[in-house]
Amino acid sequence: MTDAELHRNAVVIDGLIVSKWGREIFDEMHRGGLTAANCTCSIWEGFEPSMKAIAQWKRWFRENDDILLQVYGTDDIRRAKSENKVGVILGWQNSSGFGESLDTVALYAELGLKVVQFTYSTANLAGFGCMESHDGGITDFGRDLVAALNGHRMVIDLSHVGSRTSADVVSLSAQPVTYTHCAPFSLK
Amino acid sequence: MTDAELHRNAVVIDGLIVSKWGREIFDEMHRGGLTAANCTCSIWEGFEPSMKAIAQWKRWFRENDDILLQVYGTDDIRRAKSENKVGVILGWQNSSGFGESLDTVALYAELGLKVVQFTYSTANLAGFGCMESHDGGITDFGRDLVAALNGHRMVIDLSHVGSRTSADVVSLSAQPVTYTHCAPFSLK
Repeated sequence: MTDAELHRNAVVIDGLIVSKWGREIFDEMHRGGLTAANCTCSIWEGFEPSMKAIAQWKRWFRENDDILLQVYGTDDIRRAKSENKVGVILGWQNSSGFGESLDTVALYAELGLKVVQFTYSTANLAGFGCMESHDGGITDFGRDLVAALNGHRMVIDLSHVGSRTSADVVSLSAQPVTYTHCAPFSLK
Repeated sequence: MTDAELHRNAVVIDGLIVSKWGREIFDEMHRGGLTAANCTCSIWEGFEPSMKAIAQWKRWFRENDDILLQVYGTDDIRRAKSENKVGVILGWQNSSGFGESLDTVALYAELGLKVVQFTYSTANLAGFGCMESHDGGITDFGRDLVAALNGHRMVIDLSHVGSRTSADVVSLSAQPVTYTHCAPFSLK
């Protein structure tokens, strides 16, 4: 197999992209040969703006359906490869978008949110972030969040999460967790 | 066919129910032999509380799945009949739950909202209600709303809507519209 064939046949998934989204970026992802990418659609936002960010993505999916499709499961990644499109995996870099009730997890699950980072550098209702002056560990809300994310088959991302909170999540989660992006502590 | 058989075999759909929802009511709907019902989950609420009302319904679907199922299409009504469950058709008696951007219609469509009343007695962003002192007709936002509801295959309900606004919607809608509940004007 030549290098060119190898690249052409590979399923390439980018673990995390944050961007100023729009047709120009979507074209670059497509030209670059990405099969799928975890695209951040909430970082600091609460319930309403996070929900509306997903509404904006649904519009992008409709308006760019020549090169984009939404990924709800692994079949969609295979379909993206065979149809020469980029599969967008909707993801969050925080869990603030659920608001204060975990009943909303079911809504986001049905709309196709697949990756949820537990905290984003600072503390939130679920636990501590990696930039806090100490990590006091997971909260009871955070325990319920792990169960809800497991139950809805959403991937937990521990990037930006404090080390003790991360260890708590790893112990509690019935599913594998992920670090979509990280750097050595000594370089911090 | 005996009367009892007729009742047993009939597909019975209640055009509109508003209630203090809970297991007791769900049991009564089930015992009463309802195959499906348009259950109101938003009347005066804006975006966030309307979305959270659907989250509450998703919880009820999980907690009462021995007698309830959510209706996304006609197949689910047939399934409710064959499985001896009550099919819940999520519906609104207003369009205020979309907020100020119609991008949110796609979210509610995916979550299974199937019936949307255009206005509820008073005026809203889309047009005039039946209790207004005059009916000035549909707004431009209302025109866009008709197109969005048609596009997402959601039924437009003209109950409580002003007569001129209703006529405008009837003219504009590419799909049939409905009156789920009404009374003679002379009895008003």
